[in-house]
Amino acid sequence: MKTRVIAGLCMVPLLLILYWGGLPLVAACIAIAAVGVKEFYSGWEALEVKPSKTIAYVMIALLYAMHLFYFYAHHGTSCLEYSAYLMFWLVLAIVVAMMYGWKIDQRGPYDAMATVLGLVYVVFFSYHFVLLDSLPNGSIFIWTVVLAAFGSDIFAYFTGYLIGKHKLAPILSPKKTIEGAVGGVVGAAVLCGVYGMIFAKAYILQCIFIGIVGGAFSQAGDLTASAFKRKMGIKDYGNLIPGHGGIMDRFDSVIFVAPFVYYLVLFTV
Amino acid sequence: MKTRVIAGLCMVPLLLILYWGGLPLVAACIAIAAVGVKEFYSGWEALEVKPSKTIAYVMIALLYAMHLFYFYAHHGTSCLEYSAYLMFWLVLAIVVAMMYGWKIDQRGPYDAMATVLGLVYVVFFSYHFVLLDSLPNGSIFIWTVVLAAFGSDIFAYFTGYLIGKHKLAPILSPKKTIEGAVGGVVGAAVLCGVYGMIFAKAYILQCIFIGIVGGAFSQAGDLTASAFKRKMGIKDYGNLIPGHGGIMDRFDSVIFVAPFVYYLVLFTV
Repeated sequence: MKTRVIAGLCMVPLLLILYWGGLPLVAACIAIAAVGVKEFYSGWEALEVKPSKTIAYVMIALLYAMHLFYFYAHHGTSCLEYSAYLMFWLVLAIVVAMMYGWKIDQRGPYDAMATVLGLVYVVFFSYHFVLLDSLPNGSIFIWTVVLAAFGSDIFAYFTGYLIGKHKLAPILSPKKTIEGAVGGVVGAAVLCGVYGMIFAKAYILQCIFIGIVGGAFSQAGDLTASAFKRKMGIKDYGNLIPGHGGIMDRFDSVIFVAPFVYYLVLFTV
Repeated sequence: MKTRVIAGLCMVPLLLILYWGGLPLVAACIAIAAVGVKEFYSGWEALEVKPSKTIAYVMIALLYAMHLFYFYAHHGTSCLEYSAYLMFWLVLAIVVAMMYGWKIDQRGPYDAMATVLGLVYVVFFSYHFVLLDSLPNGSIFIWTVVLAAFGSDIFAYFTGYLIGKHKLAPILSPKKTIEGAVGGVVGAAVLCGVYGMIFAKAYILQCIFIGIVGGAFSQAGDLTASAFKRKMGIKDYGNLIPGHGGIMDRFDSVIFVAPFVYYLVLFTV
C-alpha cells in the first residue's frame, strides 16, 4: 500500500512532463529508454547473460535523432509515413544486435538475443509515448495511457483486497486474484470514460475502449516483467527509488499500454 | 563447391516465383517463414531452449492475412501507410511471445526470448521480399536481392580461393578471407550494375549501391547464421535438401539483404 502511494507521488513530475509534451517528453523518454534498458540488461547478468549496453545506447541515440530530425528539423507531420523509417530502425537494431553474437569465443549464446529483446521491448515500446504525443490528438489521449495503467493497478489492488478469492497466477504472482484483475479493467474503463466525458467529449467510446484494453494490457505488462524477474532471480529491476524499484519496475505496465493506445488512435481517431 | 552448384540449382524454382511475383511469391514466403522459424526454433532446442512454434505460426498467419487484406481485398497501394499496420503486428508479436514466458514453472528463461527473436528475425525479415514486390518498382529491384546475395556468395568463394590470404573471422568461420569478402562485395556490385544497365537503365546507381551494401549484408547474414549455429552446436539448421541444409541455411543471406533493398527502394526510388 505504502509502495503504491509513494510510487504514485513519484509520478507527479511525469504528469507535468506529459502536460508539456513535445521536447520535455522526448527527453524523459530518452532517459526512460536508457535507464530501462540498462536495468533490463543488468537483470540478465544475474543469469550470466551479457547483452550489449553500447549497442542499445547507440540505437537509442539513432532512434531519437531520427525523431527530432523528422518531426522538428524536417517538420514532418505524418506518423504513417514515419512508420516506414521506424521499421528501418527496427531492422537495423535487430541486425546490429545479432552481429554482437559474432565473437563466439567471448560471448554466450543468449547475449545477442537479449540485446535484441531490450531494443524491441524496452526501447521500442517506450518510444510509443513520444509517437502518441506526435499525433494530432495525441495530447488528449496520452493521459488515457496513464489512467488505464495506474487506474488498473490501483483498482485491481483494492478489488482484490476487498473481494479477491480466486488466484489469477498463483506461481507467477501469488497475491493477484481474478476478482482484482476484473476490478482493475472495470476501474480503468470507468476512469478513462470519465476523462473522456470531461476532456474528450467526441471520443468517449474510444476512451472507454482504451480503458478496457489498456487495463488488460497494463496487467499483462506487469505479469511479463514479473516473469522475467522471477527467471532472473531478482525482486526488482533497479533501485532508482530506494525501496521501490527502478524505472522498469515503475513503467512495466505503461510501456505495454502506450503502443496499444498509439495504434488505436492512429487507426481510428 | 558442389554444394554451391546444387544449392544454386535449387534456386531455379525460386527464380520462377520471383518472376511471377504476386500471390505465388506470397505463398513461397509463407512457406519460407514457417519452415525457417521451425528450423530456427529446433536449433535452440539443442540448448534446451523451447520457443513456441504455435505462437510463430499464428503470427505468420496474421501477418500474411493482413497483407492479403490490405493489398488484395482492400486494394491498398501505399507501403508507407501499411508500415503502421506492420508496426502494430510487430508490437503484438513481441507481446504475445513475451506472454509465453508467464508459465514460469514450465518454461525456461530463454523460451520467450527465442520466440521473439524467431518472429522479428526469420518471419519479419523474410516478409520484406513480399513487401518489396508490393512497391511500384518492386519487380525490377527484387532481382537485385538475389544477385547481391548469391553474387556475393559466389564471388567471395572464388576470390578467396584464388587470392585469399588474410582470415576474416578465424574462429567463427575459418575458411573466409578478407580478400574473399571484398571480392564478394565487388562482384555483387558488378552483377547488380550490369543488371541495372540492361533492365533498369534509370536506376543504375541505385543498383550498384544495392550491390555494394547488399553484398556486405549478405555476408553479414551468413556470419550471423553461422554464429547462432555454432552456439547451438549444430552444422545446419535443417535437412530439407539432403546434404545441403535447410531453408535457413540457404536463405540466411537473402533475408538480410531483402529488408535493406526494400527500404532503399522505398526511400529513394
